[in-house]
Amino acid sequence: MQPLMVAWRDGWSGRVPLVVQPASPSELAEVVAICHRTRTPIVPQGGNTGLTGASQPHGDDSEIVISTTRMNRIRAIDLDNDTITVDAGCVLATIQQAAREAGRLFPLSLGAEGSCQIGGNLSTNAGGVQALRYGTARNLVAGLEVVLPDGRIWNGLRGLRKDNAGYDLKQVFIGAEGTLGIITGATLKLLPLPEATVTAFLATPSPSHAVAWLRRAKAALGEAITSCELMERACVEVARKHDDRIQDPLASVHPWYLLVELTGQGAPEELEERLLPVFEAGLEAQELVDGVVASSAAQAEALWRIREGAPEGQRREGVSFKHDVSVPISQVDRFIAEANAALAQRFPGIRSFAFGHLGDGNIHFNPIQAAGEPAEAWQGRLPEVNLIVHDIVAGLGGSITAEHGVGRLRIAEIRRYKSDLELEMMARLKRCFDPLNLMNPGKLLDADLIAAAEGEA
Amino acid sequence: MQPLMVAWRDGWSGRVPLVVQPASPSELAEVVAICHRTRTPIVPQGGNTGLTGASQPHGDDSEIVISTTRMNRIRAIDLDNDTITVDAGCVLATIQQAAREAGRLFPLSLGAEGSCQIGGNLSTNAGGVQALRYGTARNLVAGLEVVLPDGRIWNGLRGLRKDNAGYDLKQVFIGAEGTLGIITGATLKLLPLPEATVTAFLATPSPSHAVAWLRRAKAALGEAITSCELMERACVEVARKHDDRIQDPLASVHPWYLLVELTGQGAPEELEERLLPVFEAGLEAQELVDGVVASSAAQAEALWRIREGAPEGQRREGVSFKHDVSVPISQVDRFIAEANAALAQRFPGIRSFAFGHLGDGNIHFNPIQAAGEPAEAWQGRLPEVNLIVHDIVAGLGGSITAEHGVGRLRIAEIRRYKSDLELEMMARLKRCFDPLNLMNPGKLLDADLIAAAEGEA
Repeated sequence: MQPLMVAWRDGWSGRVPLVVQPASPSELAEVVAICHRTRTPIVPQGGNTGLTGASQPHGDDSEIVISTTRMNRIRAIDLDNDTITVDAGCVLATIQQAAREAGRLFPLSLGAEGSCQIGGNLSTNAGGVQALRYGTARNLVAGLEVVLPDGRIWNGLRGLRKDNAGYDLKQVFIGAEGTLGIITGATLKLLPLPEATVTAFLATPSPSHAVAWLRRAKAALGEAITSCELMERACVEVARKHDDRIQDPLASVHPWYLLVELTGQGAPEELEERLLPVFEAGLEAQELVDGVVASSAAQAEALWRIREGAPEGQRREGVSFKHDVSVPISQVDRFIAEANAALAQRFPGIRSFAFGHLGDGNIHFNPIQAAGEPAEAWQGRLPEVNLIVHDIVAGLGGSITAEHGVGRLRIAEIRRYKSDLELEMMARLKRCFDPLNLMNPGKLLDADLIAAAEGEA
Repeated sequence: MQPLMVAWRDGWSGRVPLVVQPASPSELAEVVAICHRTRTPIVPQGGNTGLTGASQPHGDDSEIVISTTRMNRIRAIDLDNDTITVDAGCVLATIQQAAREAGRLFPLSLGAEGSCQIGGNLSTNAGGVQALRYGTARNLVAGLEVVLPDGRIWNGLRGLRKDNAGYDLKQVFIGAEGTLGIITGATLKLLPLPEATVTAFLATPSPSHAVAWLRRAKAALGEAITSCELMERACVEVARKHDDRIQDPLASVHPWYLLVELTGQGAPEELEERLLPVFEAGLEAQELVDGVVASSAAQAEALWRIREGAPEGQRREGVSFKHDVSVPISQVDRFIAEANAALAQRFPGIRSFAFGHLGDGNIHFNPIQAAGEPAEAWQGRLPEVNLIVHDIVAGLGGSITAEHGVGRLRIAEIRRYKSDLELEMMARLKRCFDPLNLMNPGKLLDADLIAAAEGEA
C-alpha cells in the first residue's frame, strides 16, 4: 500500500486502513455502495501523479483508497466516429498509442503521460503542451461513466458530438477532482493524426515580444500551431547544468525562448515553408532575435528535452516556489514583470524562473531561492511568496491554479481569490451530488464551506 | 408584447402580464430579485429564434418575460488574448462582424444568426454548420456572467483558457435553457480568421459512402474541413422548386450530396490543390460519383443556397415531421435506412427528407407527408412518427435533440429516453440552483421530476 500513500513530489502523504483495487465499474460501484452505507470517506486514485495532494489520503486512517489501476481496458474504438471508449484506469500513453495504431491522434499530452491514468486526467481537466490547439481534457470527452457517491452507476457513455437533450451532466464531473463521484469510463474524441511536424526554437527579447509574435503566427498559421512554450534563459541553464545531453541550440545567449511546434497534414517541407516567412517577419519586427528549426526528429527531441529538463533541473537548484497560474495572454508579460519585481524587493537574491504554455496564458512561475543560502531559511517563506504571486495573478484576472487543480495544495488559498457567491455555488453543487461529503473530503472545497451552504439552499 | 409571445415556427405561444427589457445586468438582477421575493416565474428570452418553445411563456399569465434585447453592448475585445466580451443580448451576426473587423473569427454560425442573441446561443449550446471544426457554443466560452434565480450576479467573466480552480461553474449554465439562471454576459474565444475558403458540392451514392469519404478527407485534410453537410436528392428538388435562383450544380441526378467547405490560411489555390487528390481518391473508391468546386464566391454562395433552401422548400411541401437527432457518425447510414423503412411500412407514401451536419452525426430527419393527401390527416400522426424515429435513434446510442434543445417540444419525450438516474441527477441539479423552480418552468424538465428529487437528496 505504501506507494499509493505518498505523492511523488511535494511530500503529500497519508494513511488508510484499506486500499481497494476493483477490476470493473460494477465492482467499484459495490465498494462505493458499502462506503455509502457505512459512511466511509473515499479517496479515488488513478496514476497518483498529481501535484496538489488530491489523490493522497489524510493521515488519520479515516478514509479508504479506491484505485482504478486494475481497470485498464480499451473497450472500443470507432474509426468512423473518431471515438475511443476506455476504462478510467488506462494509462494516458496507452490511449495515445492505441489511437496512433488506428491512425488517429489522442492529443492530450503531458509530462506524466507514461503513468497518469485517464480517469485522473479527466478528474483534473488536465492541460499539457497541446491545449493551445486541442483544448484541455474537457474538450476531448464525448461521454462519461461515473459511479455516484451512493454506488449507483451513471452511464453517460455517449459517442456524440452534439447532444442537447438536457443538462450536460458529464461537465459536472470533469475537473471535479473526484469530489462528486468516481469516473470509471470515458468515450474520448480522436483527431486526425498529423503527418508532418516542425519544431523550432526561437529567441525573443521578452514575453511581450513573444506574445506579439504568437499573435502574428496564429494569424498566418492558424491551428497548425500545436505548442508554443515560453522559457526564460534560466530554464535552459539549469536544464543544461543537470543533463549533459542538453545543449544550447543557439550560438548566443538570449533572455527568453519559444519552443514552437507545428503539426499538420502534408509534407514537413510545406509546413516549414509556411513557418519561415512568419519567422522572418518576426525577426524584422524585432519580436524575435534568432532561431533554429529542427532538421530531424532527433533534433526536435533535443529541443523538447530542454523544455522537459527545466522542472527537473530546477528541482536540484534548491528551494523553488511553484505556481501554476494563468492570466489572459495579453497580461503574461505584466504578470511576470510585476511578480518578479515584488519578490525581488521582498526577498533579495531570489532567482526568476518561469516557463509555460504561452498560448494558454499558463505560466509555471517557479522562482528559486537565492544561491548559496541554506534551504531551511527559504522553506518557510512559501506562504508569503504565494500571497505575493497570487495577489498579482488575481489582480490581472487570472487563476491561481491553471491546470494542476486545487487538491489540498490550494484549498485554503481559493477562499481568498473566489467570491463568497462562487464558493457558495461550488458548495451547493457539492451538496447536490455528495450530500454526505464522502467523496475525497478535504480536497477542492473545505468542509465548513460545504456545511455553510446547507442553510442557503 | 405580441411578437415576443409567439415562436416564428411551430406555433409555440403564450401570454404574460408583463415583459421587462432591462438595459444592464444590474437592472436585470433587480427584476429577478423582485421575482424571487414574489415567487414570480420567469421566462428568459433572447432573439426568440429557438425551435423548441423554450423562450415562449405558457398561456396562463403566470409568468413574466425578461428579454435581453436591450443589453447589446460589445464590452471589450482583447486581440492578444483572442477573446471578446459581450452582453447576452448581442446578436450573433454582430459578434461575428466585430470579430471579422478585428481580423478574427467567431466561428459559431447558424441560420438564425441575423437575429438570434448570444445569450440564447449559449443557453441552448447552439451547434450550426461549423461545429465539425470548432465545436458547439460550449467550446467557445471562456467566461460567463449569470444572474442567479435569487437575483445575485455571479461574475465568472474570466478570459482564461485554463482555469482549474474549483468546479467549472459556467458549464452548468451553458445549455441549461435558462432554467438555472439568466446568462447576462460572456467572454468568448476568437479564432484566426481564415484567409482562404474552398466550397465543393459532391455527389455520393449513400450516407455510408459519404461517411467513408469524410473519414478519408479528415485523414488528409485535418481541421481544414470546416463544414460537411449531407443532403439527399429531395432537398435539392424542393429547394429548386421554391426558389428560382437555385440550380442543380451537377449535370446528372444523384441520390445524396455533400456540401463541403474547407477554410485555412494561405492561398485558396493551395487549399483547392489539397482537396483535389482527396476528391479523386473518393471517385476511385466509388465513395463519390461526381462533384464540382465553386470557382467564385458567388458560386459558393449558390451552393450554400441549396442547403439553406432545403428547410424553407420543405415547409411548402406539406406537413413535415421534424427531428434534430444525432447518432455516432458510424451509425448515420443505418439510422436513415432503418427510420425510412419503418416509416414507409407504417405510413405508405411518406417521403424521405434528410439533411444535416454529417461531421457531427447530426441529422435533421424531416420526412414529408405523402403527396396529394390532405394535411389534416397527417398532422395527428406526429407522436407516432416521433416514437418510431426516436426509438431507432435511442437504439443506436443517439440523442433525440442534438442541437435544438429540449424546451417544451421534447420535455415529455426525454422521460422515455433518459434513465431514471439521469433524470434524477438533472432534477437535483435544477433544485441545487433553482429550488423554487422559478426559472423557465415547464422547460427542459417537468415539475414532477424536480419535486420527486427532493426526497432523494
